[in-house]
Amino acid sequence: MSIPIGIVGFRGFSGVEAIGILSRHPEFEPVLLEHRQDAGADLKLIRKSGPRRIAATADAACAAGVQAVLLATPPDVSIDVTPSFLEAGIKVVDLSGAFRLRTAATYKHWYKEEHTAAQLFDEAVYGLPEYNREQIRGARLVSNPGCYPTAANLALRPLIAANIIDRSAGIVCDAKSGVSGAGRKPSAKTSFCEVTENFSAYSILKHRHVPEVLMTSGLEESEFSFTAQLIPIDRGILETIYFRLADKSMTAADVLAIYQQQYADEPFVRLYETPGVPDLHAVAHTNFCDIGVVVDTGTGRCVVVSVIDNLGKGAAGQAIQNLNLMMGFPETQGLL
Amino acid sequence: MSIPIGIVGFRGFSGVEAIGILSRHPEFEPVLLEHRQDAGADLKLIRKSGPRRIAATADAACAAGVQAVLLATPPDVSIDVTPSFLEAGIKVVDLSGAFRLRTAATYKHWYKEEHTAAQLFDEAVYGLPEYNREQIRGARLVSNPGCYPTAANLALRPLIAANIIDRSAGIVCDAKSGVSGAGRKPSAKTSFCEVTENFSAYSILKHRHVPEVLMTSGLEESEFSFTAQLIPIDRGILETIYFRLADKSMTAADVLAIYQQQYADEPFVRLYETPGVPDLHAVAHTNFCDIGVVVDTGTGRCVVVSVIDNLGKGAAGQAIQNLNLMMGFPETQGLL
Amino acid sequence: MSIPIGIVGFRGFSGVEAIGILSRHPEFEPVLLEHRQDAGADLKLIRKSGPRRIAATADAACAAGVQAVLLATPPDVSIDVTPSFLEAGIKVVDLSGAFRLRTAATYKHWYKEEHTAAQLFDEAVYGLPEYNREQIRGARLVSNPGCYPTAANLALRPLIAANIIDRSAGIVCDAKSGVSGAGRKPSAKTSFCEVTENFSAYSILKHRHVPEVLMTSGLEESEFSFTAQLIPIDRGILETIYFRLADKSMTAADVLAIYQQQYADEPFVRLYETPGVPDLHAVAHTNFCDIGVVVDTGTGRCVVVSVIDNLGKGAAGQAIQNLNLMMGFPETQGLL
Amino acid sequence: MSIPIGIVGFRGFSGVEAIGILSRHPEFEPVLLEHRQDAGADLKLIRKSGPRRIAATADAACAAGVQAVLLATPPDVSIDVTPSFLEAGIKVVDLSGAFRLRTAATYKHWYKEEHTAAQLFDEAVYGLPEYNREQIRGARLVSNPGCYPTAANLALRPLIAANIIDRSAGIVCDAKSGVSGAGRKPSAKTSFCEVTENFSAYSILKHRHVPEVLMTSGLEESEFSFTAQLIPIDRGILETIYFRLADKSMTAADVLAIYQQQYADEPFVRLYETPGVPDLHAVAHTNFCDIGVVVDTGTGRCVVVSVIDNLGKGAAGQAIQNLNLMMGFPETQGLL
Repeated sequence: MSIPIGIVGFRGFSGVEAIGILSRHPEFEPVLLEHRQDAGADLKLIRKSGPRRIAATADAACAAGVQAVLLATPPDVSIDVTPSFLEAGIKVVDLSGAFRLRTAATYKHWYKEEHTAAQLFDEAVYGLPEYNREQIRGARLVSNPGCYPTAANLALRPLIAANIIDRSAGIVCDAKSGVSGAGRKPSAKTSFCEVTENFSAYSILKHRHVPEVLMTSGLEESEFSFTAQLIPIDRGILETIYFRLADKSMTAADVLAIYQQQYADEPFVRLYETPGVPDLHAVAHTNFCDIGVVVDTGTGRCVVVSVIDNLGKGAAGQAIQNLNLMMGFPETQGLL
Repeated sequence: MSIPIGIVGFRGFSGVEAIGILSRHPEFEPVLLEHRQDAGADLKLIRKSGPRRIAATADAACAAGVQAVLLATPPDVSIDVTPSFLEAGIKVVDLSGAFRLRTAATYKHWYKEEHTAAQLFDEAVYGLPEYNREQIRGARLVSNPGCYPTAANLALRPLIAANIIDRSAGIVCDAKSGVSGAGRKPSAKTSFCEVTENFSAYSILKHRHVPEVLMTSGLEESEFSFTAQLIPIDRGILETIYFRLADKSMTAADVLAIYQQQYADEPFVRLYETPGVPDLHAVAHTNFCDIGVVVDTGTGRCVVVSVIDNLGKGAAGQAIQNLNLMMGFPETQGLL
Repeated sequence: MSIPIGIVGFRGFSGVEAIGILSRHPEFEPVLLEHRQDAGADLKLIRKSGPRRIAATADAACAAGVQAVLLATPPDVSIDVTPSFLEAGIKVVDLSGAFRLRTAATYKHWYKEEHTAAQLFDEAVYGLPEYNREQIRGARLVSNPGCYPTAANLALRPLIAANIIDRSAGIVCDAKSGVSGAGRKPSAKTSFCEVTENFSAYSILKHRHVPEVLMTSGLEESEFSFTAQLIPIDRGILETIYFRLADKSMTAADVLAIYQQQYADEPFVRLYETPGVPDLHAVAHTNFCDIGVVVDTGTGRCVVVSVIDNLGKGAAGQAIQNLNLMMGFPETQGLL
Repeated sequence: MSIPIGIVGFRGFSGVEAIGILSRHPEFEPVLLEHRQDAGADLKLIRKSGPRRIAATADAACAAGVQAVLLATPPDVSIDVTPSFLEAGIKVVDLSGAFRLRTAATYKHWYKEEHTAAQLFDEAVYGLPEYNREQIRGARLVSNPGCYPTAANLALRPLIAANIIDRSAGIVCDAKSGVSGAGRKPSAKTSFCEVTENFSAYSILKHRHVPEVLMTSGLEESEFSFTAQLIPIDRGILETIYFRLADKSMTAADVLAIYQQQYADEPFVRLYETPGVPDLHAVAHTNFCDIGVVVDTGTGRCVVVSVIDNLGKGAAGQAIQNLNLMMGFPETQGLL
């Protein structure tokens, strides 16, 4: 007997990805929660079968036996619907930025709008299992991390904690993302002819994912220079991270040893023997985060490459990893 | 009466680009110099006409009235054929790395082979017209800059010269290139299925274009962290350059003012009003280098985006800009 | 002294292409005619120069010395503005489908709306120079052909005229186009994530370009099966055309001889020695139409491959070829 | 306890796809059979785990408990290794063209080389489960169909059998494939810069997959015009199939009714309500074949669009569908 899991925003890229993972999951089955009418009609398959569709209300979800919902929605929608699901006893994994930050003021600073469910900040658990596993297990509301911060924090936090980075020189995170990261709504920026044979930077030093990196890694904004850039591909995030080692005699093996200790038992973090670094094909359609390290010993310059699938570990994959934890199933269930 | 200009390596990407520019140029006409037999036969157009083809020897070139040659060849071929063309009184623009560095030792360090025409280092002029215009005019042998260094040096040199960068914190140059930069020879790395829906880093901190940047910009290797990366596109280079301003109160306008002063009369360098930065479409199929600046005043973090077409300003376009200078024609002839 | 040529719809793909060709043309210069306010502001280049911009009215155009206008606009806009330009003595090349067909009834059947300037049908010349050269020279109003019909008619008309096709078996034209053919307006169908790694058919047997093929080639609708399909590329049209030869002993050389006779003096039609057929790279960024033929002698099966750049010979290139004729300049001026 | 399934040619695209499917399959586990040394070393993952690797010999396979092997190899390798696996009691699914045709003469005609294991033709079962399900169940050697024939035969055979096509007018199959169909070996034809922004036809009327279509569908070569074409995508095959209906009053619904009857119980064939037709995204990374139909009733022109993933239903997916049948497991196991 599969457990019904609701999806709000099931037509978006993360929603579609979640449907796919849940459909193959041995314990769960997806239920589509219709929140807004989609303009375009679907192509009709003869003998079509597929997930149930019901209204995106707590009542309808309860009636359908839904035990948890994934919100693959913009922040304002997540803020709008989360309270009623929680009140109905339905667990929530929110994929938007609505509950990632810690205060309404920070939210307003980065998202440019008032937060109308600030009372939930305290119980929202930031869903990065590699660091918050136990809190996630007991949570009603998990805020799924942003795609860029997931790749950045898994790469940076162990090194910040080990205190090996010369923070006075700053850290550069040059991030590149596939176009699905921009969502499904048609726009001039994401039209085929604009993106193909192109590469462009946006939100330089001002991306709203920056505070998530600061929050988890412990860095100050002045120490962290972040640029987001659009690759002409569908999916994948690669971050090239530059910093200087406090001890210029350290080797890549020394840096990798810190990662190995931190991630020895992590099922979804993989490391590369130096000077190997991962590319995007390594993680496409998976929930892995792959990390490689290059060091120029003597000058102390270090480059870390961290890659994820922005719809996998960067969105739907990590959401279901969180869901597995919240529902008491093995963390890797349906994800390997 | 057009002046015949020889091209060695005319089947490569830079060679093909040079043929196109020369064919539309009001003063020049391309002559193809056959150096090695190509394995694949060309598709045969009925009523085909096109550039003359002759042997890639100084004698044949002289007989055909060739006054200058472009070498769109690997360094070893350039080293091999340059002396005989020069001796025959034919000017040479070499697009390879053969004559870019200043000593045989540096060449060996970065290119991993002995240099057998080191006597030409002294007279080879580094063909970056924005900085070496007068020497190029009088040169017999111009060494056309590498694609990555062209974008980096045009962005960095004015700021280094103006002494506004906090060099102690280092400079990061995160570079991305289209696949044509890797040349035409088939390889696993540049096959379609490997490149599409992918993004990958290579030669991290160790790219052979680094010494060209150091030579022109005046930076030390320990100050300059460079990573080359492959974008799934045909052509274009975008470099995202990060550094800290020595004076944290400087604004983007202050930085742009330095560029404006340096490049006020340059026909092929264009600047963007902040916070606008160029993308690759801005320079595709042109000889322009476009530059944009973002500054976080207060923290002193600065990001410069510099873009070129790697086959244009990064190779054949710049070669013909140099040729125009060497042959006494207006610098922009055939390039706008 | 350049002749000012107006462009209405200069932000669309065909308009941008026309600006580029006119800017390099030795006799013309582009003038941008603002018809509707564009939502997005342009990135601002410092020291930006460029074509003049004036209002898209006959008065403003006359005042600016504009002698001809290119309408790179939807049919309803072309119908709206054409009469006033003509009355002001300004020649018009219309790139839309507004004046391609011969009657208001046919227009309504295929374009699903009433035609409000039907009085112009009689004088509108169909701008396929290879067949209507003399009429184009004297025309005030030239209707530039559709992209698909240009590639189809150049391939089919000589063979239909030579009566070598077994029309009873029908002709199949399987057409593929780059995404720029769908125009610049953002839509779900042309968003990057929808198009990349995809291929799709649309308007099967019902495309509005079909009547143009029938009109020029002399075929009946029941004889001509046409499917349009979207390739994940920016620009280019390739049509694979299948039919049976009436005489099963004919060879590819026999078929090519018919093309050679027809196109011996045509500057923009190129033929390939069999079994070579052109691909899209052969014509990218050019005004050429390239044609290749394969025949299975004995069974009489024949396949013709016809390729153009949809923005070149399929739109802006052909428009300027027509303009050259209308203004008394060499037909290839600015196009080779 | 998983059953070990050997894969020869596990570095090729079909081999990699097979490893992925077998790894997620509840009954099987992949074992890599090293047949030839690969030049390039793999990037090394720290803590790497993965499938066992053994030599590609019958002895090694037996020792490892391998019960069946998939040959994702060129025909000559398949011909070379198949007999020894069969003799050792190991079942074989061959993904090459080695055993698809029925005689050594036909093989030589299309594959241009002698067949040295012709004694196996009699027992090799053509692995198209929708038509040969019972024979596949009992087979030792299954010859997995070609990618193009799979999409063509699933679309054509029911209509040929129902005798609704006017065969005198011929059938056109215009086929387009992603580049992975050309295999992994680097070549000029499949390099990124050659393929991107391009589209090209090859093997016009002469493709070696043609005899498979004739064999299964019952058509004559003179009735079937087939062109293969390269799309700039990684994976997917779309075939646009044109023919005339013998009865011009038939509707698309009539044609669909024939498909519905034939495929009512087929798990991997899906039909679309007219005029909907599938695109490649519909079947990417799946084992489905999707079919749509458009008819112009009155003229009798019919267009069928048939799509598969060339690495799924066109190769590894179908191979494992066959393996499920041969090993007595549910046919859809590991494939939905």
